[in-house]
Amino acid sequence: MPITEPDTLSPTLQLAFELLSRPSVTPDDEGCQDIMIERLTALGFHIEPMPFGDVQNFWAVRGHHGPVIAFAGHTDVVPSGPPTGWKFPPFSPCIDEHGMLCGRGASDMKGSLAAMLTAVERFVARYPDHDGRIAFLITSDEEGPAVDGTRAVVEQLRERNERLDYCIVGEPSSTERLGDVIKNGRRGSLGGVLHIHGIQGHVAYPHLARNPIHQAMPALDALVNEHWDAGNDFFPATSFQISNLRAGTGATNVIPGEVEVVFNFRFSTEVTHEQLKARTEALLNQHGLEYQLDWTLNGEPFLTAEGELVDAAIRGVEAVTGERPTLSTSGGTSDGRFIATLGAQVVELGPLNDTIHKVNERVRASDLDDLSRIYEATLQALLTADEVSV
Amino acid sequence: MPITEPDTLSPTLQLAFELLSRPSVTPDDEGCQDIMIERLTALGFHIEPMPFGDVQNFWAVRGHHGPVIAFAGHTDVVPSGPPTGWKFPPFSPCIDEHGMLCGRGASDMKGSLAAMLTAVERFVARYPDHDGRIAFLITSDEEGPAVDGTRAVVEQLRERNERLDYCIVGEPSSTERLGDVIKNGRRGSLGGVLHIHGIQGHVAYPHLARNPIHQAMPALDALVNEHWDAGNDFFPATSFQISNLRAGTGATNVIPGEVEVVFNFRFSTEVTHEQLKARTEALLNQHGLEYQLDWTLNGEPFLTAEGELVDAAIRGVEAVTGERPTLSTSGGTSDGRFIATLGAQVVELGPLNDTIHKVNERVRASDLDDLSRIYEATLQALLTADEVSV
Repeated sequence: MPITEPDTLSPTLQLAFELLSRPSVTPDDEGCQDIMIERLTALGFHIEPMPFGDVQNFWAVRGHHGPVIAFAGHTDVVPSGPPTGWKFPPFSPCIDEHGMLCGRGASDMKGSLAAMLTAVERFVARYPDHDGRIAFLITSDEEGPAVDGTRAVVEQLRERNERLDYCIVGEPSSTERLGDVIKNGRRGSLGGVLHIHGIQGHVAYPHLARNPIHQAMPALDALVNEHWDAGNDFFPATSFQISNLRAGTGATNVIPGEVEVVFNFRFSTEVTHEQLKARTEALLNQHGLEYQLDWTLNGEPFLTAEGELVDAAIRGVEAVTGERPTLSTSGGTSDGRFIATLGAQVVELGPLNDTIHKVNERVRASDLDDLSRIYEATLQALLTADEVSV
Repeated sequence: MPITEPDTLSPTLQLAFELLSRPSVTPDDEGCQDIMIERLTALGFHIEPMPFGDVQNFWAVRGHHGPVIAFAGHTDVVPSGPPTGWKFPPFSPCIDEHGMLCGRGASDMKGSLAAMLTAVERFVARYPDHDGRIAFLITSDEEGPAVDGTRAVVEQLRERNERLDYCIVGEPSSTERLGDVIKNGRRGSLGGVLHIHGIQGHVAYPHLARNPIHQAMPALDALVNEHWDAGNDFFPATSFQISNLRAGTGATNVIPGEVEVVFNFRFSTEVTHEQLKARTEALLNQHGLEYQLDWTLNGEPFLTAEGELVDAAIRGVEAVTGERPTLSTSGGTSDGRFIATLGAQVVELGPLNDTIHKVNERVRASDLDDLSRIYEATLQALLTADEVSV
C-alpha cells in the first residue's frame, strides 16, 4: 500500500509532499514559493520577491554580516507527459512499497528544496545567532528559457553589489548513492544553427540544381570527427553533437535549396567559445560551403576547483554517509553557471538523478532526510567551529 | 495590350483559351473533358468515360480496324500558388505583348490538348475514311497521385485486350525551339524512405546515446558518391538524390533517436530496380547501420528506340519546322510509363517546358498552331501513304 498521507512522516517529507502536490510546470510556481517564504519568514529571514515577466523568484537572507552562503533551487518542474504513462498520478505524491517518494519533481528538485528548508530550520534552532548569513535564491524558471529566473536575479544582485561567497545548488548530482558525486563545475554550452545553401531543382534534372544535403555531409562528418581538445583534470573532452537536421519540401521529386543543422558544443576550459567558432567556420570554409551560421552561447564553463565550500560539502557528506564524494563537472547546464559569475564558489549537491525528466520520477524517501542532514552538516562546517555532527 | 478575347484567333488558340479558363487543379477537371468530348463526338468518335475515384478519365476511338494511334494527355494542372505572384491571373488566359499565351496549363498541357484536337479535326476533314484508328486517352490526374488516372485506364484496356500500337503524349518535350526534342523513353524512378535508428539521449551525455545523424553521414556520403552505372546510348547515367532529411525533436539538447532520409533514383536500362535495392542495402550494411528501408517503384524505364512512331514524329516535326528533332530520355516521369506497358510505341512531343510548374506559365501562341500541324503531319505519316504536308 503506498503512503499517500504524510502526517506521520518527517518534516522534510511532509514539506516535499506539499510541494509535489502543486503542478508547477515551468514557468508556473503554483504557490510553492509562498510555502517556503512562510517558513523562512518564521525563521527570521528577510524576504525579497523578485518576479520578472511571468517568472516568480525570491531572494531571502538571514543574518547581517559575514560570508553569505546561499541555497539555490527551482520550484518549476518539466511536464509530466500523459499521466496515463505513470504508475501513480504525477502530481499526487506518495511513497511506494519500495520506500520511494514518487511524483514529478521528487528528484528535480522539490525534494532538495524541502531538505534545504528543514536543514536551515534545524541549524537555526541550534545556532540562532550563527556567524555569517544564510540565503535562498529560488526561481520558477530553471527548466524553461532560464532568462527571467536565476539569471535575472543574479543581475539584480550584481547591480546592488550583493556579496555571495558560497552557493549550494540543490540539483540532483548523485549517481548511484546519495552524496557519491558533488558537481564542482560545469562545461560550457555553445549552440549553432547552420543553414547550408544549395540550388533547388527537380530530382530528374540534378545538373540544374546543387543538392545542399549532398554538399553538407562531408563537412558535417568532418565536424563530428574533429578532435576539439583532450579535456583536463576537471573536464572531459569537448564534445560536438548534431541535434536537429532539416531539409526538403516533403515532396520526393524536389532537390531542396537548403539544409538546416542545429548543433551543440559542450566544452571544457581548454578551449574558448571564440576558438570553437573560428575552428568550425574554418572547417566549413575548407569544404567550400555557402552557409549562414548563427551562434548562441548558453553558458561559459565554470569551475570551483577547491576551497572552503568544496571542503565543507565533502565533510557534510562524509558526516552523514561515511563515504567520500567524488567531484565531477560532467552533465548538463544548471543555474550554477549564472551564480558563478558573481565570483561565488558554487557546488551542486542533491539526490540521485536516474529518473529526472522521465515518467515515474522518484527518489528514496530516506535519502531526502539524509540530504537534509548533509545540508545541515555543510552549514555547520562553513559557519561554525564545531565538529561536524548531525 | 494583352489579347483577352479569343474570337479572332485560330481554332487551336480558341480551344486553348476555353480550357485554360477552367481552374482544373488536380484532380478536378472542371468540365474540360466535356468540351473535348463534345468536339470528338461531333467527329464521330466513340466516347467511353472511365471515372475512377474522384478522377475523370475518358477513352475515345474513331475507326474500326487497323493500328491504333492514341493521343494521351491530362486536363489537370498543378496549383498556381498565390495569384498575386502572377503578372496575369492564372486562370484568365491572355496573349501578352510578346505573343505568349499565359495561364496555368498553357504549356503543361492544355495547349497540347487543344493542338491534338484541332489536328484530328483537320485530319478527319481531309481523310474522313482514314485507315487505322485514332484514339484519345485523357485523364484529370497526371500531376497528382497518378493512381486513378492513366494507370487505371491502362489496366482496364489491358483486361479487355485493347490494341494500342502508337501513343503520342502531349507533355512539353521541347527545350529551346518547338519540336527540337522528342522524348522516346524515360528513366525509371525508384524511391526509398530510410529510417536510421540510433539511441536517443541528452547532448550532455553522448556516451549514453548513439547519434544516428553522426552514423548516417558516412553511409549517405558513400551513396551519393557511388557510380551506379554509366548510362548508355539512350539514357544518361543513373542518378541518386536525397530529397528530404529529418532528424531531431526540435529541442537543442536532445540527441535524436532516428534519422529519416527520403531519396530517389532515376535509373537507366543498364540496371534493374532489384539491383539498385540490393546495392543500396549492401552499402548501408557495410556501414553497420541499424535501419529500416521502404521502397517505392514509381516507374520502370521505358524506351521506344526506333520504329514507325519515332519515324513519323520526326517526319511530322521536319515538315513543320524544317529541323530534325533529337531524341531524349531525360527528365521526369510521365504517364508514358504506364502506356508503354501495353507494348505500345510511345513518344512525348509537346511545346517548350521552360515555364512549367512555375508562376507565369506561358507558351508562344504561334507554337501551339505549329504543334497542331506537327500532330496532323504525324497522323498523316502514320495512317496515309501521302507525302507529308500540312
